[in-house]
Amino acid sequence: MSLLHPDRLFPAEPATRAIARRLYDGIRHLPILSPHGHTDPAWFADNEAFTNPSALLIQPDHYVFRMLCSQGVLLEDLGIPARDGAGAEADPREVWRLLARHWALFRGTPTRMWLEHVFSEVFGTQERLSEANADAQYDHINECLKRPEFRPRALFERFNIEVIATTESPLDPLAHHAKLAADPWQKAKGRPRVITAYRPDPVVDPEYEGFIRNVEEFGALTGEDTRTWSGYLHAHRIRREYFKSHGATSTDHGHPSARTADLAAAQCAALFDRVMSGPASRDDAELFRAQMLTEMARMSMDDGLVMQIHPGSVRNHSAQTLARFGRDKGFDIPARTDYVTALKPLLDRFGLEPTLSIILFTLDETSYSRELAPLAGVYPSLKLGPSWWFFDAPDGMRRFREMTTETAGFANTVGFNDDTRAFLSIPARHDVCRRADCSYLARLVAEHRLEEDEAHEVAHDLAYGLARKAYRL
Amino acid sequence: MSLLHPDRLFPAEPATRAIARRLYDGIRHLPILSPHGHTDPAWFADNEAFTNPSALLIQPDHYVFRMLCSQGVLLEDLGIPARDGAGAEADPREVWRLLARHWALFRGTPTRMWLEHVFSEVFGTQERLSEANADAQYDHINECLKRPEFRPRALFERFNIEVIATTESPLDPLAHHAKLAADPWQKAKGRPRVITAYRPDPVVDPEYEGFIRNVEEFGALTGEDTRTWSGYLHAHRIRREYFKSHGATSTDHGHPSARTADLAAAQCAALFDRVMSGPASRDDAELFRAQMLTEMARMSMDDGLVMQIHPGSVRNHSAQTLARFGRDKGFDIPARTDYVTALKPLLDRFGLEPTLSIILFTLDETSYSRELAPLAGVYPSLKLGPSWWFFDAPDGMRRFREMTTETAGFANTVGFNDDTRAFLSIPARHDVCRRADCSYLARLVAEHRLEEDEAHEVAHDLAYGLARKAYRL
Amino acid sequence: MSLLHPDRLFPAEPATRAIARRLYDGIRHLPILSPHGHTDPAWFADNEAFTNPSALLIQPDHYVFRMLCSQGVLLEDLGIPARDGAGAEADPREVWRLLARHWALFRGTPTRMWLEHVFSEVFGTQERLSEANADAQYDHINECLKRPEFRPRALFERFNIEVIATTESPLDPLAHHAKLAADPWQKAKGRPRVITAYRPDPVVDPEYEGFIRNVEEFGALTGEDTRTWSGYLHAHRIRREYFKSHGATSTDHGHPSARTADLAAAQCAALFDRVMSGPASRDDAELFRAQMLTEMARMSMDDGLVMQIHPGSVRNHSAQTLARFGRDKGFDIPARTDYVTALKPLLDRFGLEPTLSIILFTLDETSYSRELAPLAGVYPSLKLGPSWWFFDAPDGMRRFREMTTETAGFANTVGFNDDTRAFLSIPARHDVCRRADCSYLARLVAEHRLEEDEAHEVAHDLAYGLARKAYRL
Repeated sequence: MSLLHPDRLFPAEPATRAIARRLYDGIRHLPILSPHGHTDPAWFADNEAFTNPSALLIQPDHYVFRMLCSQGVLLEDLGIPARDGAGAEADPREVWRLLARHWALFRGTPTRMWLEHVFSEVFGTQERLSEANADAQYDHINECLKRPEFRPRALFERFNIEVIATTESPLDPLAHHAKLAADPWQKAKGRPRVITAYRPDPVVDPEYEGFIRNVEEFGALTGEDTRTWSGYLHAHRIRREYFKSHGATSTDHGHPSARTADLAAAQCAALFDRVMSGPASRDDAELFRAQMLTEMARMSMDDGLVMQIHPGSVRNHSAQTLARFGRDKGFDIPARTDYVTALKPLLDRFGLEPTLSIILFTLDETSYSRELAPLAGVYPSLKLGPSWWFFDAPDGMRRFREMTTETAGFANTVGFNDDTRAFLSIPARHDVCRRADCSYLARLVAEHRLEEDEAHEVAHDLAYGLARKAYRL
Repeated sequence: MSLLHPDRLFPAEPATRAIARRLYDGIRHLPILSPHGHTDPAWFADNEAFTNPSALLIQPDHYVFRMLCSQGVLLEDLGIPARDGAGAEADPREVWRLLARHWALFRGTPTRMWLEHVFSEVFGTQERLSEANADAQYDHINECLKRPEFRPRALFERFNIEVIATTESPLDPLAHHAKLAADPWQKAKGRPRVITAYRPDPVVDPEYEGFIRNVEEFGALTGEDTRTWSGYLHAHRIRREYFKSHGATSTDHGHPSARTADLAAAQCAALFDRVMSGPASRDDAELFRAQMLTEMARMSMDDGLVMQIHPGSVRNHSAQTLARFGRDKGFDIPARTDYVTALKPLLDRFGLEPTLSIILFTLDETSYSRELAPLAGVYPSLKLGPSWWFFDAPDGMRRFREMTTETAGFANTVGFNDDTRAFLSIPARHDVCRRADCSYLARLVAEHRLEEDEAHEVAHDLAYGLARKAYRL
Repeated sequence: MSLLHPDRLFPAEPATRAIARRLYDGIRHLPILSPHGHTDPAWFADNEAFTNPSALLIQPDHYVFRMLCSQGVLLEDLGIPARDGAGAEADPREVWRLLARHWALFRGTPTRMWLEHVFSEVFGTQERLSEANADAQYDHINECLKRPEFRPRALFERFNIEVIATTESPLDPLAHHAKLAADPWQKAKGRPRVITAYRPDPVVDPEYEGFIRNVEEFGALTGEDTRTWSGYLHAHRIRREYFKSHGATSTDHGHPSARTADLAAAQCAALFDRVMSGPASRDDAELFRAQMLTEMARMSMDDGLVMQIHPGSVRNHSAQTLARFGRDKGFDIPARTDYVTALKPLLDRFGLEPTLSIILFTLDETSYSRELAPLAGVYPSLKLGPSWWFFDAPDGMRRFREMTTETAGFANTVGFNDDTRAFLSIPARHDVCRRADCSYLARLVAEHRLEEDEAHEVAHDLAYGLARKAYRL
């Protein structure tokens, strides 16, 4: 028995499945472009062995531990360190056994598909995880991880990744990227394999922990007087150039909402002074973030960086979990998100500029057919990012295409983002998306809404061409 | 010709249908657990014959009369009594003929499926209802109802119901449940067959008709001084125990919104004083309901009752219908419902408690993928109730699974609720859900997203195991 | 190779497809009822030849030029005239070449289907449009347009249109309709072929360009003193009668929201005075529109005109495009729309009136299952308009049926509206809807949720009967 069926995710109807298979065969071996994600650049810069199966596959993966948490497993028992010290000493083998014991929870979820893809394709396991085989599978993976062919760079090559973007704060020195720049591996293919992306939230969001201190550090780093609006803006320009010199082709903005603003310069300066002089009011914080999206658009028109806007997540919903374990512990929850009103100030200013490119994401599926596809289907500056986060799964992907294609077509979308910290799952995630897209296209072909020769071209675009173009790779 | 095709609701694609059949065959004969509904406990306590087909199948069923009303049939002509006396004298046979004349309206609706299941499986009719056969069908059903095997307890046993929960106000003396307790039929299977559930809206919602009078009666009933906040809370504790002694394992809360609050004790007392001293302001009423959800959670942690929250219905939307016919006349309309912000106060207080169990329902499907699945997929205290009310139908059920499984899996759902007053439709409703769930699972299996052996286990859980566990039956 | 496959849009599963084919064969040749649209009555009154392929098929079609615009094609290069004179001189052949060059953008969109239907069925072209054949196709269509059988009336008859409604402002003299009335062609079938509809936005919406001037003109036209509330209302009654005498059976209301109001007469008069005495505040404008929906309902009860409410479009989202090119340039974007609260004042007043008929549309799909189907499924005055604008495509149509049928059935819907300026696409649009509806019905039949004999009746209703009845044609 194999964990992965060759026809997985294809529609059951035989004629449609046959079309899906043909489309998929044409694109399955294309290189992976990963233009947005959260892998650790140190992996590629240092190329050290991963430590153990639990540290690699469970502890950094919020999809995994949030599901376990929902059924009463304690984060500390999964080895996730609490501020009071709990969890730090968890035995990785025991953590693994917890996953095995609760394996049934993941039925029907993408986590199950991704992990079985990793087990099967990366580690050669063909048996379903269970309490009975948990130790054996742990030992097997653990042994693998010690071998050179399981080091980050070897996997990178085996995964056929052409380029991967990590995401860094403007305050990050980009030391790993700098180290990589000096390493022949990085340019073995003629272009950098690991690039960065500019994620300025820590110096753009007045509600970010340590915002004022961050802006001061931002000044120190750039030699600008970031206590003034003009110095602050200039620091961004300097830092964006620095990021570009480390391969960046994009910026990324993780705001609570998609609100934008287009204030007069004097208002901007006054607003900046207010947010820099103590805890900002909620309204000021929101307005400042809104204005900064427009400022970032203005800079993008000059330096060519593509903007990504990832709005709509209520971060750290559980106050208790935030207090005890810190950020990013699976308690980020989507919220209703408006785009049509929120984006108007920015779009009225720059929306028709041919050099501007903004990729919009959402965690509120209702906005796809109502707002995002109509917006991206007319504004030349707008593109639709792929289905994101909770929607990064076969049914989520199907709904994305069904709710956007009839209004925005394919060319206003940008291919797939794996958006993950879980490096080993990257091929799995791209494969799921390729299969889901081919399934969608196969239905169009089977229903005579698209000819098969065209579907092959579209499949290629969705798997490779659009990402390359949209992210200016 | 038969009214019920054995393959009804299964996917048309032959291989998928074959899987669905196999899954369904494994669970079709499981006993029915009905942990949330609105049947009349007097039926089971007194076991008297139902009066006539229209009184049994039309007049109590708002799904039936709202559709007829939408096409111009007057409620009074259906024998629904108006306050001015109209409707009281309607001839049940004429009412039945109205249903038959308008039978085509129900094409494609669950009402059609439920009623044909009742006609076919309960009464043995195999002919589609029409004006031509209306009288004959009326007579046939009417004759059946006089026979002992159509009395409530006989049908209860024939329907293979293991346990059914009714829903009562805290002010209800539970006389029928008490009568049942003394009847050997009630415990013939070792456990009670008919249990109650604690629905405190009349003493929790300051906008409920007669709220202040209700709270006073609540005091009289419990011997507590319900004019004080502490006495009022204590009355709840007393009454919850009383309900538990009549089998209750759950409470139920039908609020306009899902808003919760976590006020300091002094604020609670002051708020309580305000809502008890005359018509509450809208804001106070909403805040009081919000605080009471948190209080109910606190009590649940002590007494183990599972909480159900059914928010988001705008009750009695038509002022004219309310004035003339009273509540529950088919004019309750869903409204947009927020959960992520609304539930935070309660969840910040008790959301991680392992002993707390809250089942969330919605009439706003958009919240499934955006809010409810992400919340239930991480908070151990939260579970997702099944698709409810207007969504209690094959496509509604399919969307529920498609929008929740990828994020929350199956284990964070609780099986099916029939939630009905229409006793005879209970097997039909459970059967529709079992078929819909098996169809969903069959698609996962056919697309190799789940192995068939696992799908059999999941099907069993969805039909029986999860309800038993979630409702602590 | 043919551009149109006979099985297009039918489900791929063979048994289901066979049912869909049978259903479609029963209705494919039914005449077209087009009760809501935006064709130019001058076409039918004057029956002159269309000028060239681009002026006919590209420049008036916002679906076409918005997609091209989204990928950087300039509106002026498409021959859409800017206020600065750009675009006026564009060569229609060059415009056509732009369409051909970007033809791939339309893959998966309804525009592609509609245009290929036009190319194939109207002009007999069987080759996919490309840069290589662009000139030849242009020439071929251009030649056709010069022939008598491609004049508007000939096409009207060839398209088997029984009746078409255009949409006019109350200020429109209806000269074309008057000319038609004197032409034997108009009544060759015993009833008028081209009728008007009353769209009073220019004199109802205080934010409409020139509102006060429009209301004054409205007075001049009707001989009423439209500076007074009572004179203004009376002018509507006069003008509605005038429209009825030119065939109108309906009114149409394109408000930003679905808000209604039911103010006392004195409040109405005061509000009217305010909106007529200078720029109205946003609140007053919204309240006035809200009150006017209720006034229109009151008039409809007297004169029998069916009301259509088309809310929820944010018009002219791009300020730059509005300034340079004017209204209706593809930048109307849907917004979230509430119905349940918004409609209550009107419904509390007139919602149960048997003579009132209101057809509700939406650009916010989330309202279908949550608000619109529950409302239309109980209020006798309400019906659901078909999927509209961005949703006027196979998947949008499927979601419409899936989200409304289980609650509101079929009889509370009104058949199809093509709602288009693109006269040649009318048969294509109706054909897409007929195929989509038959596909939905075929799934119900294949899943034994509806018997095939009933599905044939429903298919006929959806294609013809419901529109005739709902629009009182």
